Amino acid sequence: MSDRVRIVVDAMGGDFAPAEPVRGAVEAANEEERIEVIFTGDETAIRKELEGVQYPKERVRIVGTTEVIETGEPPVKAIQSKKNSSLVVGLQLVHKGEADAFVSSGSTGAVLVGGQAIVKKIRGIQRAPLAPLIPTQKGASLLIDCGASVDARPQHLVQYAVIGSIYMKEVMGLDRPRVGLINIGAEEEKGNALCKETYPLLKECKDIYFIGNVEARDVPAGAADVYVTEAFVGNIVIKTFEGVGGVLLSEMKSAMMSSARSKIGGLLVKPALKETLKKFDSSNYGGAPLLGLKGLVMKTHGSSKAKEFKNTLLQVLQFQEHDVNGKIREFLEKADD
Amino acid sequence: MSDRVRIVVDAMGGDFAPAEPVRGAVEAANEEERIEVIFTGDETAIRKELEGVQYPKERVRIVGTTEVIETGEPPVKAIQSKKNSSLVVGLQLVHKGEADAFVSSGSTGAVLVGGQAIVKKIRGIQRAPLAPLIPTQKGASLLIDCGASVDARPQHLVQYAVIGSIYMKEVMGLDRPRVGLINIGAEEEKGNALCKETYPLLKECKDIYFIGNVEARDVPAGAADVYVTEAFVGNIVIKTFEGVGGVLLSEMKSAMMSSARSKIGGLLVKPALKETLKKFDSSNYGGAPLLGLKGLVMKTHGSSKAKEFKNTLLQVLQFQEHDVNGKIREFLEKADD
Repeated sequence: MSDRVRIVVDAMGGDFAPAEPVRGAVEAANEEERIEVIFTGDETAIRKELEGVQYPKERVRIVGTTEVIETGEPPVKAIQSKKNSSLVVGLQLVHKGEADAFVSSGSTGAVLVGGQAIVKKIRGIQRAPLAPLIPTQKGASLLIDCGASVDARPQHLVQYAVIGSIYMKEVMGLDRPRVGLINIGAEEEKGNALCKETYPLLKECKDIYFIGNVEARDVPAGAADVYVTEAFVGNIVIKTFEGVGGVLLSEMKSAMMSSARSKIGGLLVKPALKETLKKFDSSNYGGAPLLGLKGLVMKTHGSSKAKEFKNTLLQVLQFQEHDVNGKIREFLEKADD
Repeated sequence: MSDRVRIVVDAMGGDFAPAEPVRGAVEAANEEERIEVIFTGDETAIRKELEGVQYPKERVRIVGTTEVIETGEPPVKAIQSKKNSSLVVGLQLVHKGEADAFVSSGSTGAVLVGGQAIVKKIRGIQRAPLAPLIPTQKGASLLIDCGASVDARPQHLVQYAVIGSIYMKEVMGLDRPRVGLINIGAEEEKGNALCKETYPLLKECKDIYFIGNVEARDVPAGAADVYVTEAFVGNIVIKTFEGVGGVLLSEMKSAMMSSARSKIGGLLVKPALKETLKKFDSSNYGGAPLLGLKGLVMKTHGSSKAKEFKNTLLQVLQFQEHDVNGKIREFLEKADD
């Protein structure tokens, strides 16, 4: 029992709730017997999704809730007023120690605000960053912070670098994660005031392997394993990434449909293209952790399907088994000395 | 004579100098008889490129220079010490009123620093932004500022919005350019301190058509005609754009080469793909203007070929014929009242 990792899954969050979160969580529980799933949400709706599905009854349970926080609701107000929502009740379970982690495809704002307000930061953590894994030519890199906390200061970025390195080491199994500071030039003296102040602090930091500045152009190639940046810039990187990828793929698709010749060609190249593009499918890695909290909070895309939920739960398992939060605490205590 | 637009072309800047800048500039002069080209650079090398080429001798001349500013040289020092470089001499010609515009593929830093220090800002312009046209699904949009001046303040961004709108109206022929503020959310209250302060100023500004915040995800789709942002973020957008585009295309190419089947398919789809991707080829539009200076300074990509140089010179022609700087001055005088 003690080895089990107890994961709350918000069954009401995202575009395909409750079907996809329920399916994905059950698949993860079927695959890994150390996973225990606690669904929060409309009990009747969840039971309906579970009907006829094979799953380990003793490791899947439901905590019924009556409210749902919608995307677009002002996060602070929503968290305060909807006490019986799947999101607030789920975060409370983590806060009370009745669960280890919370996974949701619901409103990003509500997950970020709720995570910090209810689960709360580890003592010594100044800001809790959102840190998605982004697919690159070399595999995946962590982009930290990607939208949790704008107008960060240099010392916050140093903490991001350390906890991002711990994450990549423990969860993704990298031996010595390369940390790069996202900047507009390669040389040390380049950039805005924040970068210029942060660079020497990262260079001095003994807990990370800092490789210097990384230009945004080199992010998709996998120039570093941990891309450190302030929330606004991180959000711009990931959104431009998604936007350009989406537009290029849709343009290619319509090009392939534009003539009989290109349609035949399209059918012939499709299997190879699919294989290649799989590498760039972020659902392979699952959701983004909001790091530095007392329990793990994971935000999955609003459009997540079962596969992303499943992979998120598997990522949570790694996080708990490698005691990432314990290692973050160790670093903070050492830094405190 | 008075209708002629006199354009200095730095024949020593970029990866393919002097061949490509010379070829591109000559093509532009052949196409438009209002264009007069002044090459700066190694006279012998330029003459060699012109040998056997058809061009209007009375509208193409050379100002011989002996030094070259290399990419990677610290810009301020390079500008100060290499007085007889193709770049400094070229900018001096604009400063002295002997030319209307300067075009270079050389070091971005040197072009930005030299442009501001030698050609100088129009009175009333606080910061001179670099403003490339970026290809989108709808055509092209102006990204302003894209790297000239980091840590800008809200009032700078308002000036960018106005001069960017003038540019898109006069040079690109848009009736009522839509201005969007690049931000991490659509709602007015979203973003960092800079965005929160800038938004209401843009909303109040009567000289532009402000459509609100634009998320980076919607940039490639052409959500606005003028994307206003601070230099650091602008640089991140364009570099991520280039990086993701480059990686995706190279992955697709190798996917198409991966089997006999996909090779045949690749050959069949190639014409349609090429047609589509042409839309996203930034060399269709030419280089990026450094706006707000007394004369026009255009920075072309380091890897520019003749086509980009030619299109840049045609853009310069539009800029001069529509008296963009006159219109910027009018706005500044009005704002002064």
